[in-house]
Amino acid sequence: MSITVPKGYLLAGVHCRIKRDLQKPDLTLVLSDTPASAAGVYTQNLVCAAPVLLDRSRTPSNRIRAVVICSGVANACTGERGLRDAEEMARLAAAACGAKGDQALVLSTGVIGAFLPMDKIEQGISAAAVKLGNNDACLLSAARGMLTTDTVHKLSGRSVTIDGHEIQITGMAKGAAMMGPNMATMLALILTDAAIDPPTVQAALRTATSDSFNCISVDGHMSTNDTVLLLANGAAGGRPLAGKDLEIFQQALNETCVDLAKSIPADGEGATHLITIEVSACADRDSALALAKTVANSPLVKTAISGADPNWGRIVSAAGYAGVPFDPNGVSLRVNGFSLYEKGAPVQFDAHAVSRSIRDNRDTLIQLQFSEGAAFRRFWTTDLTAEYVRLNADYHT
Amino acid sequence: MSITVPKGYLLAGVHCRIKRDLQKPDLTLVLSDTPASAAGVYTQNLVCAAPVLLDRSRTPSNRIRAVVICSGVANACTGERGLRDAEEMARLAAAACGAKGDQALVLSTGVIGAFLPMDKIEQGISAAAVKLGNNDACLLSAARGMLTTDTVHKLSGRSVTIDGHEIQITGMAKGAAMMGPNMATMLALILTDAAIDPPTVQAALRTATSDSFNCISVDGHMSTNDTVLLLANGAAGGRPLAGKDLEIFQQALNETCVDLAKSIPADGEGATHLITIEVSACADRDSALALAKTVANSPLVKTAISGADPNWGRIVSAAGYAGVPFDPNGVSLRVNGFSLYEKGAPVQFDAHAVSRSIRDNRDTLIQLQFSEGAAFRRFWTTDLTAEYVRLNADYHT
Repeated sequence: MSITVPKGYLLAGVHCRIKRDLQKPDLTLVLSDTPASAAGVYTQNLVCAAPVLLDRSRTPSNRIRAVVICSGVANACTGERGLRDAEEMARLAAAACGAKGDQALVLSTGVIGAFLPMDKIEQGISAAAVKLGNNDACLLSAARGMLTTDTVHKLSGRSVTIDGHEIQITGMAKGAAMMGPNMATMLALILTDAAIDPPTVQAALRTATSDSFNCISVDGHMSTNDTVLLLANGAAGGRPLAGKDLEIFQQALNETCVDLAKSIPADGEGATHLITIEVSACADRDSALALAKTVANSPLVKTAISGADPNWGRIVSAAGYAGVPFDPNGVSLRVNGFSLYEKGAPVQFDAHAVSRSIRDNRDTLIQLQFSEGAAFRRFWTTDLTAEYVRLNADYHT
Repeated sequence: MSITVPKGYLLAGVHCRIKRDLQKPDLTLVLSDTPASAAGVYTQNLVCAAPVLLDRSRTPSNRIRAVVICSGVANACTGERGLRDAEEMARLAAAACGAKGDQALVLSTGVIGAFLPMDKIEQGISAAAVKLGNNDACLLSAARGMLTTDTVHKLSGRSVTIDGHEIQITGMAKGAAMMGPNMATMLALILTDAAIDPPTVQAALRTATSDSFNCISVDGHMSTNDTVLLLANGAAGGRPLAGKDLEIFQQALNETCVDLAKSIPADGEGATHLITIEVSACADRDSALALAKTVANSPLVKTAISGADPNWGRIVSAAGYAGVPFDPNGVSLRVNGFSLYEKGAPVQFDAHAVSRSIRDNRDTLIQLQFSEGAAFRRFWTTDLTAEYVRLNADYHT
């Protein structure tokens, strides 16, 4: 893993009083020296937030200079005024590097139904603009500025040499945190100094997210604000990536996205386990994903893991209602490497040993094998604990 | 509500040592004096239990004489031997009234992956056969014999007079209870003395379940054993129901099924609220059901209710990912009669008053209005509490 600021970017995270805790940055500003190719992948929720509407209309693009992120207010369910606020927030960020208003993208996360505190945001952008830098401290404060109740910041990156040019990919993410009257929002911003044209950068991001950010869940509740952005400013030099060079880049981008994506359920609210679900020998990739996701979102599977219970009945029966046809007599299941179910029949196993292996490790591996084909998918989720319920049942409105 | 044993039926519930607690009946036997029309509606889980496979092959029917239910073992994921055991259990029940083995239906609920204790079940059927009766005590013991960790038995019924004949419909159900390594199974058995031919009784049951048992959830995990059976033995006299007479019967059957269905989430594991979700002005009934179900199964909505939090953002955003197209600007929301969201925009409301009304009532009413059409559906679910997690995270395997 190589986590440094890619060439040609400046970042800062500051506290501008959106959050109550003065120690926590709540605004992040990212500038690119030159116009960058930009791609976005967004929530499919029909009730989506103003920043999502704005960014969707501006990506893919070949001229993005700035990204501004605020945490504490989601700017969701805020109608026309919310959209105007998002546009103004973008304009202020772009102005910080002398660019036009439509050369900036915006991310927000936090309370639903509240308007952005535009005075604080304006002050925050001004304060961030004078703190911009490309050292580790700047990167860290930027990564922290997008968090809500995440317990840790989330950074990952890769460095690859392509055609003699050293290319850096660095991403930051937030998620699995509840704040005010809303749900877990997943945001990620990935920066690279690679040269890539806009349609290619959009395709690369879509490919990377399909096996990373689209393969995680905490509670299955899709947010109004989920967004992944990728900026590529070409500062590393070289011609726009294509062919074999693009494949090398894609691989590094995929790895970065998987790192970031996994870090979200790993930091899930009240979670005591990161559960990896591997589904194999399915008819096709969509079927594999549906099966993995249905198992991942079963509260009975999630509570079994939090209770260290090798409860194969819950896992196998969750697969049964995924809406995907399969032969029940062709199903086998392993948990943490222990075989619990083979070709549709229970097998003798040491329940205490399996339970101990779940209890003593934060990572749990569930492997479900079918007999329909060759497709494989991996999905990550959390267990479900009483602490999750406590965090989310508190009175906030 | 009229809850008595319909004419021509005898029932008993006994303890035969499947459950550990001697006070709890674990086997129920129901006989009909004459061959009854019988209908069934079953789980759509691909991983379904042996009793489901057996009953599905025997309904609709015009010759059912017996139903036998055991609680404690689900006879699911038990392969060929499980199917043979279910057939033998049916044969023993039918023999108790001198009928043939294929004139009986079987229900089971409990641990997945364990074989039926056939010696205990044989003794239980013998013991039940000598206790059969048609008084309230017999009905109650029969209703209790199908329970697992339900905290209350579930009975409902209606009496209607059709063409001079007094017709009784009486149903019993179990559900929302966890036992051993499995999930909440929903079982219901409805008896009537009405005369109805098998295709009609099957259609009537399907109609009644579509707005009752198919509109409830506790945790969204579909069981391997879910079954609703309806027996109609004609003992009330009269010709087979048709036309207007059938409509009267259907209405009473619908009401009975709604009563029983609601009683399941009302007794949901660890539940402190029964949540009724009414979705209106949708394009069609399927859309309305998908919207209601998605809101019902959001852990963030469920925890908001357990925490008495009038958290409209969670409810509205859950609707947004139901996969049903709608105009976000046409959505309005009421909780317990309080308007929280009107035509896509938040409205001022007294959060403390709404919170108090959620906290102080066991029933919570969520009303979501769209602007796509005229379809309406009602759905029932529970809230999500730390107690649910505790019950389901305990080590059982």
